[in-house]
Amino acid sequence: MSLLKGTCIIGQSGGPSSAINASTYGAIKTALDSEAITKVYGALNGIRGVLDDNLIDMGQEDPDELALMKYTPSSALGSCRYKLKNPDVDDTDYKRILEIFKKYDVRYFFYNGGNDSMDTCNKISKYMMKNGYECRVMGIPKTIDNDLAGTDHCPGYASAAKYIATSVMEVYHDARVYDTGMITIIECMGRHAGWLTAAAALASYKGNGPDLIYLPEIPFDMDKFIASVKEIYAKQKKCIVVVSEGIHDAEGTFIAEYANKNMTKDSFGHSQLGGLAAYLASVVKDETGAKVRDIEFSLLQRCAAHCASQTDIDESFSAGKAAVDNAIAGVTDKMVGFERAYVDGKYVCNIKLFDLTIVANTEKKVPIEWINDTGDGLKQDFIEYVLPLIQGETKLTKEDSLPRFVNLKKVKA
Amino acid sequence: MSLLKGTCIIGQSGGPSSAINASTYGAIKTALDSEAITKVYGALNGIRGVLDDNLIDMGQEDPDELALMKYTPSSALGSCRYKLKNPDVDDTDYKRILEIFKKYDVRYFFYNGGNDSMDTCNKISKYMMKNGYECRVMGIPKTIDNDLAGTDHCPGYASAAKYIATSVMEVYHDARVYDTGMITIIECMGRHAGWLTAAAALASYKGNGPDLIYLPEIPFDMDKFIASVKEIYAKQKKCIVVVSEGIHDAEGTFIAEYANKNMTKDSFGHSQLGGLAAYLASVVKDETGAKVRDIEFSLLQRCAAHCASQTDIDESFSAGKAAVDNAIAGVTDKMVGFERAYVDGKYVCNIKLFDLTIVANTEKKVPIEWINDTGDGLKQDFIEYVLPLIQGETKLTKEDSLPRFVNLKKVKA
Repeated sequence: MSLLKGTCIIGQSGGPSSAINASTYGAIKTALDSEAITKVYGALNGIRGVLDDNLIDMGQEDPDELALMKYTPSSALGSCRYKLKNPDVDDTDYKRILEIFKKYDVRYFFYNGGNDSMDTCNKISKYMMKNGYECRVMGIPKTIDNDLAGTDHCPGYASAAKYIATSVMEVYHDARVYDTGMITIIECMGRHAGWLTAAAALASYKGNGPDLIYLPEIPFDMDKFIASVKEIYAKQKKCIVVVSEGIHDAEGTFIAEYANKNMTKDSFGHSQLGGLAAYLASVVKDETGAKVRDIEFSLLQRCAAHCASQTDIDESFSAGKAAVDNAIAGVTDKMVGFERAYVDGKYVCNIKLFDLTIVANTEKKVPIEWINDTGDGLKQDFIEYVLPLIQGETKLTKEDSLPRFVNLKKVKA
Repeated sequence: MSLLKGTCIIGQSGGPSSAINASTYGAIKTALDSEAITKVYGALNGIRGVLDDNLIDMGQEDPDELALMKYTPSSALGSCRYKLKNPDVDDTDYKRILEIFKKYDVRYFFYNGGNDSMDTCNKISKYMMKNGYECRVMGIPKTIDNDLAGTDHCPGYASAAKYIATSVMEVYHDARVYDTGMITIIECMGRHAGWLTAAAALASYKGNGPDLIYLPEIPFDMDKFIASVKEIYAKQKKCIVVVSEGIHDAEGTFIAEYANKNMTKDSFGHSQLGGLAAYLASVVKDETGAKVRDIEFSLLQRCAAHCASQTDIDESFSAGKAAVDNAIAGVTDKMVGFERAYVDGKYVCNIKLFDLTIVANTEKKVPIEWINDTGDGLKQDFIEYVLPLIQGETKLTKEDSLPRFVNLKKVKA
């Protein structure tokens, strides 16, 4: 295959994480260093930046400053939650994207995001192929939810998992300090997949963890939950519970909805959840009369770069790099993912390519066989899965003992 | 003064922090190494452990394991919120304490805690003196609230401040990621003193901080607050607000009370606050129609040992050590505190002793002259005060890249 010369656009989409910038930086740096790619553009706020002709020239950034992206949380190029329509119904956006691609001679498009972003990637890729415009399109995964199909795990997940495990261990100590009774309810993100919440099991594995963990993979039974809390509380005067925001009853109704009937929906049709821990705390308080604390990790779990996993950051970087390397080598219409191997018993993470069609809009859940028989904890299989991913402390640059995050110039293309 | 030989009791009280164990460990280690102190007892759950004859022998602990206390959050000996009565009204508890002191030949009593604990310390000290029982009593300060009188700052404050500044910087990035509007309300602890909330100004100093900061030192004006948020939001589509849990109106009513009229009071008569951020978020949402997120740092801010300040840990250790060293040298009825000096422009922290009578039950607030003229931010004076305190990354032991916290055997005396 002959070398395809042209410019590239890199965009970020979906909820931010502590590692998405490491992936984007991996792609940007590799693209800047390549012979094939003549210019590297960043799309501000994802696909919206393409539609609005709002691109920045990454070559104008100071290389040392740009390198700080690797340890900066959130999406340095800005994100969006813009959903492309089905091109058979309305192709306005696609025409506009093609127009911009032609204007800037874009021959490489890299999109860094979660399920919805892989869907965007897939649609653009198929449209360009159908319209005979040669452009190599690669998806770079990102999601703290760890719910993308195919790949062994997702960039960003392990850093959030490490933050959750660490914080739960700390709360465990705090919550046991008085000789009086105390029940603590902690809420983690995770709408349909319980990977983040499951990470609290790492704290239990270390002997400083929750008594009960509830994932959305198993229907939540309020009566059983209250009985379990009462039993544990009666025995040890303390009880720590970690729940996923997405736990739901057997009928599929989110428990968070019990408290909040008037939920709004986002542009992808997802319900906006929240306040679950506070709701469960009030239920438990009524049922037990105990002192109950509720803690919601909220945005903290997805942006706590100061507690990221170096393994996650390195793998995220390598995913971005692999997307560019593969595209230059002729690959298109794929998502970069990971395959796990063990060499001499030691965890190794290999790059593997996945079809965008398969990845888009499918959610990978925690295997039921990794959840204990009572549906309120994780088995050792999960610990063995997650433990290698959270290893290593990051080399986050500090200034005055506070994080020194990237400051991009964002020179317009 | 002749050497006073006998045993010692060390207890912890009040809300836990990331640094109180460093202080207690400083006292335990120094006492174990001393000639004067024949046995070192830990009182489980503070003064309750003395009253209930629930003491452990610290000499039975493995020294290497014990050393992990320095970086373990919360109170390893357990805490309490037990308030001693005025001995002129009811001296039952004091008689019991004296009985225990005699039983174990206790000649040194070290109590590690906040305002209320210094009050306990003071009362015990005065009672022992009045009853002619020779016992040297020293208070070791601890409070993330930083509100103890006399001392330049309090052990534990800086670690909480560093966590708050770091997390606010991370949330700043996360909250700006979309091109759509977003208002974020963050709630910090601090009932009457705004030191913790003020720490968010460190994030602004680094250019990644909140737009508005409200401390309890200045009466909170809801109309002015809403007007300020609206103005900032109209200008930049983003607004980050950090509030102290203790903000109150000009009449002294807590803003949190607006939302929750049926507040309970703890055994010291303090109102139980909480849910302020969620309440303000709902007010702001109604007023602006914007998307509003509320984040409560809750227990996380006082137990996040993984983000502690090494300066704080070292100073906390030295406070515990100084309490024992001074007591052995003949000092009694004092609290160990800090005095700041600058040598060749470099921050130095010196130990200074304070009368327990002065310290107990007085609260040191953020100086009004450090708050800006609009009452919604901090001046550079505060930054210069707090910056030296948060310096240095800790040497927290990790195992599997997760914290390795202390596990005491707790052998009963």
